[in-house]
Parts: sequence; structure tokens; C-alpha cells
Amino acid sequence: MEILKKRLREFARERDWEQYHSPKNLAMALSVEVAEIVELFQWLSEEESKTLGADKRAELEEEIGDVLIYLVNLADKFEIDPLHAAMEKLEKNAKKYPAQTVKGKSLKYTEYEKP
Amino acid sequence: MEILKKRLREFARERDWEQYHSPKNLAMALSVEVAEIVELFQWLSEEESKTLGADKRAELEEEIGDVLIYLVNLADKFEIDPLHAAMEKLEKNAKKYPAQTVKGKSLKYTEYEKP
Amino acid sequence: MEILKKRLREFARERDWEQYHSPKNLAMALSVEVAEIVELFQWLSEEESKTLGADKRAELEEEIGDVLIYLVNLADKFEIDPLHAAMEKLEKNAKKYPAQTVKGKSLKYTEYEKP
Amino acid sequence: MEILKKRLREFARERDWEQYHSPKNLAMALSVEVAEIVELFQWLSEEESKTLGADKRAELEEEIGDVLIYLVNLADKFEIDPLHAAMEKLEKNAKKYPAQTVKGKSLKYTEYEKP
Repeated sequence: MEILKKRLREFARERDWEQYHSPKNLAMALSVEVAEIVELFQWLSEEESKTLGADKRAELEEEIGDVLIYLVNLADKFEIDPLHAAMEKLEKNAKKYPAQTVKGKSLKYTEYEKP
Repeated sequence: MEILKKRLREFARERDWEQYHSPKNLAMALSVEVAEIVELFQWLSEEESKTLGADKRAELEEEIGDVLIYLVNLADKFEIDPLHAAMEKLEKNAKKYPAQTVKGKSLKYTEYEKP
Repeated sequence: MEILKKRLREFARERDWEQYHSPKNLAMALSVEVAEIVELFQWLSEEESKTLGADKRAELEEEIGDVLIYLVNLADKFEIDPLHAAMEKLEKNAKKYPAQTVKGKSLKYTEYEKP
Repeated sequence: MEILKKRLREFARERDWEQYHSPKNLAMALSVEVAEIVELFQWLSEEESKTLGADKRAELEEEIGDVLIYLVNLADKFEIDPLHAAMEKLEKNAKKYPAQTVKGKSLKYTEYEKP
């Protein structure tokens, strides 16, 4: 992740593109890339979404790369470490939804919104 | 990233939540979390978006954590390594937009869509 | 729709909020509102998504209102009539996907991306 | 709007596409179309976003059509009238943000989140 962050800084600097990389713009770009992932799955059933053909899988891989690129770019503007943020959030969620309490209960009957 | 991936598998297994984690659902959840990032910046100017107060920065950190959580979850379903995907995509972009060609040129006048 | 458009102009003018309503900002706000709709359905199966409880239905109604508000606001900045745009697009789609050709064929086997 | 609604029902019925139009899927499709609007503005400054060239304006018009199509489709599944929903929401907002209180105050200093 550190290497990616440095490579992204370099990439933008070499192209003089830092001027376009305001956090506002990066947030927009992030949402556009995520929509390209959603597009891959929109007409598939949940079951169908579990297996993608080789072409679609390759496309998904590229889009996942794009999402991480913008996420790391955005985080870097605020000196946020995405991995650290995710681990912290996961610990918070683990306390909020204790396994023994929520296990086997459908999400629809809990207050659970974002697993 | 490997540690996060394993911790996420464990988290879902302990709660019996794997049943909700179809790629289709994970893609939706990913887009919802990204929108919470967009919400932080929607009424700010680009300049204002560069400095967030402590509260907003803390909120952003949590949302970045959420986005990475769902991204890693989704990628794991297809045995995709997000970091590898990002590095590959960056190399592809580096070839597509050679520094000497696009430097100093406004994005509006290039075919450039997604830096 | 004409009444809504006029009422929205008035609403923004009375609050001096036109300054925030750049097309860029309205597009972001539109995407944030749509994500609130997606959030309602993210953990439901397709079948479950067909029936919402009274509370969720009321929430959906509000979010649909929000989406139309921003859509009409944005369209108004470019003197676009959303209803006209939708009817035109529908005619275009009707030609692109002739009923007799695509009927009964699963979307997965057509080039069809956006019904 | 009524005409559009009826035409959309017909369009789906003729193609046997109602099976794909679960509320969950329609919400996803709606978000994908909105992202295509966001994409048009992502690298523009707020000022630049106010004037689009003819090509981009035509593209925006199509995307606005797509968004309204999915919004009306989704609303129809729950017998929601989007125009009515928008007028109701606007009245609610008018009470929540009284013109004399919020006027001239920057959104950043109010609790105002969604104008």
C-alpha cells in the first residue's frame, strides 16, 4: 500500500495532474469507478453474481484496481492509512455486532445496516 | 491486506453473514459507503474540500475503512488481490497517458477521462 | 413538473442557495440521494425487495422525492425537460432492442446493458 | 409522467423484461445511470460545470432521461407518484429550513446537509 501511495504521487506529479486531484474531485471519481462495478452485477441474480466469465472477471479486476487507486489518492490527501482505518472499523463493528447476539438472525430483524 | 482479508472472512463466518455477502450485495454496499464519502464533500468548493475539521476527518477515516472493507470482501470472492490490481492498472494508465504528452494539458482537451 | 421546477427555483432563491447549486454539486447530491435508495435494498433478496414494510415504503417515497428534486434542479440549469428526455430515450431504446428480437432472451446473452 | 409510466410498463411487458425489474435491480440501475451524470462533471470546476458543449449537453440529456426512466419504473412498483413525493418533500424542507433563518448563512455553518 505504501508503494502504491508513492507511485500514485509520482504519477500525478509527472503529469501535473495534482491540480485536478482535489478531495471533492477524487470522491466523485471514486463513485464513478464503483458504479462500473455495480454495472457488472446489476442484472444478475445474487446466485449468478457469484460466478463471472473470464472477460467479466478481468473487467472486475480492473475496476477494483481503479477504486483502490482513487481511495488511496483520497486518503493520502488527509494522511489517512486505509488499512489502519479498515482494521479500526472492523474492531468497532465486532463490538457493535457481537457474534453470539446476531448469529443466525436475519439482518432484516436487527438494526444492522452495514456489515 | 492479507491480515484484513482473513479477519473479514472470520468476521462474516462467526456471524453467519456469508449468506448476505453475494458479490451483487457487496457491490451495492460498496456504492452506499462511497456515497457517504461524497456526502462529506458535496457542498464544499474544491478549495474547501482540502481541509476538513477534526470531526469530518474522523468521519472520512471511518468511511474510507468501510469502503476498503467491502472492496476486500468483494475481491476475495473472486480471488482478486486489490493491491496487485491497482498496480497493474497504474502501469496501464502510465502507458495510456505518457507524462510528456499529457503534461500541462488540461484534461478537458484530452480524451482523458479517468486519471 | 413545470410547477415543481418553478417551486424549486423559488426555494433556492429565497434561501440564497443558488450559489451552492452548481451542476457539479447537484450531480453529487443526486448520487448521494440515490445511494439512500440503494441502501434500502442492499441486504434484501430480489424477492424480498418487492414488498417493503410501511416505514421503509415511506422512506423510499421521501428518497424518490429527493432524487426527483435534484434531477429537476440539474436539468433546469441546462433547460432540459426530464420528461421529454425520458420519452426520447425510451423511443431510442425501443429501436435498439426490438421486442421480437430480444423477447424471452436473457439479458445475459444479449449485448443489452441498460433496459 | 402518467404517459411515461404506462409506456414503460408496456416496454417491459413487450420484451418480457419484468422479470429483471425487481426493485433491487432497478435501484442498482438507477445508481449506475446517475454515475454517468457524475462522470460528466468530475474533472470540471464548479464554474466550468455551468457550461457544457453541445455534445456533452446531449449526453447529459440522455442520462437525465435514463435516470427518470428508472426512477419512474421503481416508483411504479410501489405505487409511488414521484412528482407528489417531490412536492411533499419540498414542503417538508421549506419548514425545516425557513428562508429567514438560513438565508445568507453558509451551509457549512448550518446543520444543513441536503438542500
